Amino acid sequence: MYGKLSEVIASIRPANAEAMRRALGRQRNLTKPPGSLGRLEDVSVQLAGIFGNERPTIGGKAVIVAAGDHGVVAQGVTAYPQEVTAQMVLNFLSGGAAVSVMARRLGVRQIIVDAGVAADLPDHPELRSARIGRGTADITQSAAMSREQAEQSVMAGVNVAVEAAESGADLIAAGEMGIGNTTASSAITAAITGASPQDTTGAGTGRSADELAHKATVVQRALDVNMPDANDGLDVLAKLGGFEIGVLAGVALGAASMRRAVIVDGFISGAAMLIAQALCPTTRDYMIASHRSAEKGHGIVLSHLNLLPLLELDMRLGEGSGAVLAMPIVEAAAACLTDMATFGEAGVSDRDDNEVEAPIGG
Amino acid sequence: MYGKLSEVIASIRPANAEAMRRALGRQRNLTKPPGSLGRLEDVSVQLAGIFGNERPTIGGKAVIVAAGDHGVVAQGVTAYPQEVTAQMVLNFLSGGAAVSVMARRLGVRQIIVDAGVAADLPDHPELRSARIGRGTADITQSAAMSREQAEQSVMAGVNVAVEAAESGADLIAAGEMGIGNTTASSAITAAITGASPQDTTGAGTGRSADELAHKATVVQRALDVNMPDANDGLDVLAKLGGFEIGVLAGVALGAASMRRAVIVDGFISGAAMLIAQALCPTTRDYMIASHRSAEKGHGIVLSHLNLLPLLELDMRLGEGSGAVLAMPIVEAAAACLTDMATFGEAGVSDRDDNEVEAPIGG
Repeated sequence: MYGKLSEVIASIRPANAEAMRRALGRQRNLTKPPGSLGRLEDVSVQLAGIFGNERPTIGGKAVIVAAGDHGVVAQGVTAYPQEVTAQMVLNFLSGGAAVSVMARRLGVRQIIVDAGVAADLPDHPELRSARIGRGTADITQSAAMSREQAEQSVMAGVNVAVEAAESGADLIAAGEMGIGNTTASSAITAAITGASPQDTTGAGTGRSADELAHKATVVQRALDVNMPDANDGLDVLAKLGGFEIGVLAGVALGAASMRRAVIVDGFISGAAMLIAQALCPTTRDYMIASHRSAEKGHGIVLSHLNLLPLLELDMRLGEGSGAVLAMPIVEAAAACLTDMATFGEAGVSDRDDNEVEAPIGG
Repeated sequence: MYGKLSEVIASIRPANAEAMRRALGRQRNLTKPPGSLGRLEDVSVQLAGIFGNERPTIGGKAVIVAAGDHGVVAQGVTAYPQEVTAQMVLNFLSGGAAVSVMARRLGVRQIIVDAGVAADLPDHPELRSARIGRGTADITQSAAMSREQAEQSVMAGVNVAVEAAESGADLIAAGEMGIGNTTASSAITAAITGASPQDTTGAGTGRSADELAHKATVVQRALDVNMPDANDGLDVLAKLGGFEIGVLAGVALGAASMRRAVIVDGFISGAAMLIAQALCPTTRDYMIASHRSAEKGHGIVLSHLNLLPLLELDMRLGEGSGAVLAMPIVEAAAACLTDMATFGEAGVSDRDDNEVEAPIGG
């Protein structure tokens, strides 16, 4: 358990360049045409750097789903009422939500975090209570939370990630639930990347062009009222929210400090990664983007983080659903690097122009 | 066990439209914004049609990897020597190949079929010997095989698929190994779709622009010499080969006859699906495209089959590696449809414009 954010940040080391170099060499020697596993090869080399081993092994997997409410729902930016946040937490706990079903099917441990839901929630073995507040303040009127609360939310995420890592998770997916949180994420993305609210604001769960235009106006107002400092991750988080976004930024920092891979979900999870990167740029080494969401602002987030997602399936659910779905691909990438035979081991004839190892047979 | 191809074809029924209709209705009622699971929702509805149940369950998974040699290697179209086909079969059997590693990691049973490798292979519990011949004839000189051999190869695939289905596989991946088989697949794709050899011929495992141009010339010569009838799947298969492609066409027919899903791999697996569709168009209902290969002709195959792949990871290995990688996504799609809670069951408030079920709560 870490007590202070500065300690966590100080503990984060870059990916291991030497392990990545050895992994690249090993890839060239495996029984397949060079490069024929495409993106899996890149992912495998990144995993070698994360785990500091050119033969990385993935043991456990966990998805951390942070939930929080948003005062900005008072501005009429969502199609679903605020109580859906708490109702969905119950749905996660009873295993009926998409991410819960996928996690069960794919062997991923689910940990739910109440980061600040505006309703009482029952005790449950899968639920961690962080509860920085009962929903954020309306960001069109004031900051979402205090700077102290922002740091608390990040530290809550750090500690849940450390718990997941210590209990065996090598891949940690960052998911979320929070009615109103695409609005907060659009504001964060605009604040950190400099893109306009028109470009960072998508439909979320909403419907019409009018609603969308209204939402972009709300995002602009939040920026005008709060004037966040793009270079200060805690300032952006405190001013624009939300509690669950702070927790996910902390999950990334905690995972990086433990040298575990963070599997980034969609737009909101990505906005949390913008905060994490602003707090500690090295955290980026530990991020793997799972999918390209259909939500409009997500492409801007991915570009800013220089992340190329593995999947593009027109999903836009959040919850960590895309991240959980990408986990078997990440596992397969590691397994190929670690467990495939080399040309020499298998007695397979290599093509004549591969200098790494002499051909055997023909 | 089927004895005659005509019996197999006669046994194939279309996907169950009523189950698909019910699955669509159920999707609208699950606890998520409508459409937010994107492509997973389409896949889930197709699975409902395949299994005839709006709550499909995926039990076992198998990958069938058919291997065969190609006389056309005499024309210098490959970067690897012919003996690599047999060497890679041994690599599959000892678990060191990419598809073997992925299958083990992802819980997929591996079945290897010697469809006509030009070398002796040992007995092994994972190896089925079909061995229609010891490699096909050179298609720039004559037909690859006789029409009887073409039917034998298809029937061998049918029976392996039936074996896999009877031993519990609900998803059956169609993979292959055969030095020279991108050349055969380019010829098949040109013959059936009408596209030019320039457009259907890619690098395969080869390297230079000269080699590529030479390969397209070889494909054109194979078409000129053999003049296959695009409307006669067995004629195309007999004239252009190969044995393993015939087996995979049979795998599709066998899976469809058993109402199991066929997970199509890349270009060569796709060429086999063109043969299967030519033999029995209804087979298409049972095909799920796993990935878009980096191999050039694959886009033409996918368009002709009207298949949209799930993954696009710049892979071009074959072996069924892309198909195995997509299996967890297909499983997750089915699991969400089958196991997610509805708004009513979970007590989650729906948005006000969903007529399917009245909102609960707000």
